[in-house]
Amino acid sequence: MKVGIIGLGLIGGSMAIDLKRKGFADEVLGVEAEPVNAAAAGKIGLVDRVVSLEECLEESDVVVLAVPVGTAVRLLPQVLDTFAKSGAADKVVMDVCSTKEHLARSVKYHPQRRQYVASHPMAGTEYSGPWAAMPGLFDGHACIICDSEESSPKAVRAVEKLYETLNMRTIYMNSSNHDVHTAYVSHISHVTSFALALTVLDKEKDEKHIFDLASGGFSSTVRLAKSSPDMWTPILSQNRDNVLHVMDTYIEKMQAFRQAIADGDEDGVRSLIEEANKIRRIIR
Amino acid sequence: MKVGIIGLGLIGGSMAIDLKRKGFADEVLGVEAEPVNAAAAGKIGLVDRVVSLEECLEESDVVVLAVPVGTAVRLLPQVLDTFAKSGAADKVVMDVCSTKEHLARSVKYHPQRRQYVASHPMAGTEYSGPWAAMPGLFDGHACIICDSEESSPKAVRAVEKLYETLNMRTIYMNSSNHDVHTAYVSHISHVTSFALALTVLDKEKDEKHIFDLASGGFSSTVRLAKSSPDMWTPILSQNRDNVLHVMDTYIEKMQAFRQAIADGDEDGVRSLIEEANKIRRIIR
Repeated sequence: MKVGIIGLGLIGGSMAIDLKRKGFADEVLGVEAEPVNAAAAGKIGLVDRVVSLEECLEESDVVVLAVPVGTAVRLLPQVLDTFAKSGAADKVVMDVCSTKEHLARSVKYHPQRRQYVASHPMAGTEYSGPWAAMPGLFDGHACIICDSEESSPKAVRAVEKLYETLNMRTIYMNSSNHDVHTAYVSHISHVTSFALALTVLDKEKDEKHIFDLASGGFSSTVRLAKSSPDMWTPILSQNRDNVLHVMDTYIEKMQAFRQAIADGDEDGVRSLIEEANKIRRIIR
Repeated sequence: MKVGIIGLGLIGGSMAIDLKRKGFADEVLGVEAEPVNAAAAGKIGLVDRVVSLEECLEESDVVVLAVPVGTAVRLLPQVLDTFAKSGAADKVVMDVCSTKEHLARSVKYHPQRRQYVASHPMAGTEYSGPWAAMPGLFDGHACIICDSEESSPKAVRAVEKLYETLNMRTIYMNSSNHDVHTAYVSHISHVTSFALALTVLDKEKDEKHIFDLASGGFSSTVRLAKSSPDMWTPILSQNRDNVLHVMDTYIEKMQAFRQAIADGDEDGVRSLIEEANKIRRIIR
């Protein structure tokens, strides 16, 4: 089996490493539009060959779109068009993007829709680019497959096998629900982390103090603020309504906290903290 | 040297372990008001003996106040009174609290003020109680000593040696600056984490979804929301003005983010993320 990965960043690069290492792919082809990243991916040896988009689509059995979601929305119909033109009815294309509804809409009525499987492996780090790729990134995490009834069973099975190889737990949901739930659980925590970094950089002009005083707690809370604008700008844009909705709730909670502190209402502050502590039951 | 630790939670318990293990203390005495915690500390063997407050003050050369800051404000003058009454001019008392100005004020004019050293080891986890105590908790972290000119050089030297034993880097600052900087760098990240937990628990009623979809990023951002209300209620209360000030800035940053997303202003969102990314330069 030949796997073609378009986008050799953190996700695409890490997949390339493990799909080859674990024998899912006999050969991994890579496409990378950014020349510096393409050169780095070649040098690191993330893939067997760095090729053009055309070569990748022609040679690969499974094509993985591992590009920011704005680019994926543009590329996905192109890939299916190419499959149609070349009569490649057995090829499969999958994406790994963090928002799903726009992507789903972009090919909903495409005659080759059934060759596409929408998926989202819930794994990553705050780093990006081919340098950030690592073995084992996906190990033990959850992966969401969306709208699987709109893909051919054979295509879904191929993608399931790919994720089994990466040792991921697969969950099924439609793309609209996916976007609601990831806004609640994933996207908001990036926004709060960006806002925290902006606040600390604004208030604490003395960087030495930030460095000296940052304990493990602060570092872990602000970690996601290092995340790539290329990835996160389109996510926040494409999942706009869900993200705004959860941000409004978040700002309300902050205001409630602020009010209790301002009022010197220690019982109120304590209740809010005790309520927040319930997350202990869910997150280890 | 005998060290007496009042409060056998995460911080007090972890100090007890390392001060004994590394030979700073020949004997560690512990005081714990909460019967369940006292029994646990005894069972785990955190200290050589669990004793009464009176015994602890009588026998110990160095007394560590490792209780929530509200309790410390009450206890510290008592401890200095006891030193005065018993003519124990060589004994030292130190605290390890996260806010410093109220504490400093509580003994500013106490005749035994010079036997007290104000300090704040910047280390911890989101867990609390004697069960959370661990060796090496302080290793490599920063420790702040406040208002050292108000303590006797001998008392400061004893506390410095204690922190050297724990392998901490010592920083000096007055208590008012301490409270400003920790609000910016430490307290705000607890508040944002509490608010994040409240938001997710409010929006995502299906706990299974939180569990399934929580990636490493969400877990690290929400980690501090597990922190103890006994510790954090008095911190937020005693550092009220600084915390409110930094919360206001934080809410402004969130509003700016919200506005850019609502306006579909991708350039604006990208600029905010790029600005937030500057934290990379400071935090590893």
